[in-house]
Amino acid sequence: MKKLINSPDTVLEESLDGFVAAHAGIVALGAERKFVRRLHPKPGKVALVSGGGSGHEPLHAGFVGHGMLDAACPGQVFTSPTPDQMLAAIEAVDGGAGILFIVKNYEGDVMNFEMAAEMADRDILTVVTDDDVAVEASTWSTGRRGVAGTLVVEKVVGAAAEEGRSLVELQALGTDVNVATRSMGVALSSCTVPAAGTPTFDLGADEMEMGVGIHGEPGRRRVKLAGAGAIAAEMVGAIHEDLGRAGDALLLVNGFGGTPAMELYLMYNSARAELEARGFTVRRSLVGNYVTALEMAGASLTVTLLDDDMTRLWDAPVETAALRWGR
Amino acid sequence: MKKLINSPDTVLEESLDGFVAAHAGIVALGAERKFVRRLHPKPGKVALVSGGGSGHEPLHAGFVGHGMLDAACPGQVFTSPTPDQMLAAIEAVDGGAGILFIVKNYEGDVMNFEMAAEMADRDILTVVTDDDVAVEASTWSTGRRGVAGTLVVEKVVGAAAEEGRSLVELQALGTDVNVATRSMGVALSSCTVPAAGTPTFDLGADEMEMGVGIHGEPGRRRVKLAGAGAIAAEMVGAIHEDLGRAGDALLLVNGFGGTPAMELYLMYNSARAELEARGFTVRRSLVGNYVTALEMAGASLTVTLLDDDMTRLWDAPVETAALRWGR
Repeated sequence: MKKLINSPDTVLEESLDGFVAAHAGIVALGAERKFVRRLHPKPGKVALVSGGGSGHEPLHAGFVGHGMLDAACPGQVFTSPTPDQMLAAIEAVDGGAGILFIVKNYEGDVMNFEMAAEMADRDILTVVTDDDVAVEASTWSTGRRGVAGTLVVEKVVGAAAEEGRSLVELQALGTDVNVATRSMGVALSSCTVPAAGTPTFDLGADEMEMGVGIHGEPGRRRVKLAGAGAIAAEMVGAIHEDLGRAGDALLLVNGFGGTPAMELYLMYNSARAELEARGFTVRRSLVGNYVTALEMAGASLTVTLLDDDMTRLWDAPVETAALRWGR
Repeated sequence: MKKLINSPDTVLEESLDGFVAAHAGIVALGAERKFVRRLHPKPGKVALVSGGGSGHEPLHAGFVGHGMLDAACPGQVFTSPTPDQMLAAIEAVDGGAGILFIVKNYEGDVMNFEMAAEMADRDILTVVTDDDVAVEASTWSTGRRGVAGTLVVEKVVGAAAEEGRSLVELQALGTDVNVATRSMGVALSSCTVPAAGTPTFDLGADEMEMGVGIHGEPGRRRVKLAGAGAIAAEMVGAIHEDLGRAGDALLLVNGFGGTPAMELYLMYNSARAELEARGFTVRRSLVGNYVTALEMAGASLTVTLLDDDMTRLWDAPVETAALRWGR
């Protein structure tokens, strides 16, 4: 295992300490490192709380700040955070207008956020994201997995929360964005969880895992490595078929951690051409490592069908460690 | 070779097309893809032009925009751009107040930018960056190599150009920033140039290349992989010794492309602790993949000793594909 770490046991805490120190103008760390919260909360606003296993950085702590999340609860690598983390986060960021949980559809996450919602005597609603079209169920989830589309939900709903929308309205908006969003990924290499020390899965020198999950869990099939155009065609095809229609779209090309920017932009070029050939118009774009699987090589495509409200909220100012514009 | 590409021959053009399409509000592509230029030039301002081999993305095209570069000339992967690219870029962005070249110290780059400056009948000055303390000369350079510190020069000088400083003043400022800046890197894996198809160098399963360059070229020594704290201590030690003094500093932890954010923030945490133990105060921070070597695993540390003017210019608004804040 080749990693820039000191010990597998302290990866999360050392990384969190570094993250918060590097972005001290935007975020603060909760007691016992249970959560990362927005440094300057906005009173009277619905508080957005997310979280999940670590190893997907910048998701979620990198999206805490003005216009996006109020708090994120980081679990150990690829491990759900515990309900006491969510309870501590709620305590810190509740602004009196209710709390919206945004949760990726993995069994541990869903269960622990549900438990926290029951234990907390507060006004809490939840949006569960499940944008991954690759598989209908997985070793990690009942139903589809929540992957990079979660970023789009967090950004759009975060902007609406900043505008003062109610908890019920935000839950409805988050659900709408999730329904309008589809993703699919491909892996060219595995990743290694520090505590495990060996690669999560094996992949031949000329193979790729089509439809891979963000923990390196299996996708649709393992096949011979293809060209970027053919990969984009398959993924866009699956996304389009599942959406059922074309339209104005946001295209997110998300790197899993080990793929360089050159390749991500090349994938964007291929995916955009495929979308346009199918009648989509790409109105908004994002390219980079946003929802990662440690150092896994590969990328996912996310397409969100945009309406005017979503587009305006996507464009609204955001100031977080990983997304920053318009302010 | 496992890459998300269609053919080694078209990597650069497809990637550039994707980059410009994804950031169409910020940049535009020159004819024959000779350069990437700022979409909204500012008349009467000194134009900043940089460039170099591709494979280091987001450097340099990712730094084109308000508050930073006016144009960047991308060569093939790890290959200098040609003088006709710089001439075309100059033609497009000359605002009448002169042109400043910012060039990393590699023989091909320095020669080709010099040639362009001679051929163009314009007012051109140059800043050559050479911030890498790892080696005093290399297979790629006469004297020290220019690496991630180039970003700091481009950001600070870009902000000063936006304020209307003269060509001579900007060259002096760029020189000052370069002199105040030191970097050193470490590689945990090699990278593969698409046209070559095989890894640039071999590294044992338990080895690292200490002092590696941004093309995977040799550093100081190849040693057994150490912990992040020990690596940070060696690199910060070399940087501090070379700077000759401690002080208020900017700390940039730069990923080479294949190292996940978790590890970069952990390295930041280690490096910051080491700097503070040596009497530095970290006033500004940047962590991420900014000056990469394709998919190489590893990271570099860059330290710039800040004065008030540099700090203010670092903080000034910037709107590029890869750096965006304050606007």
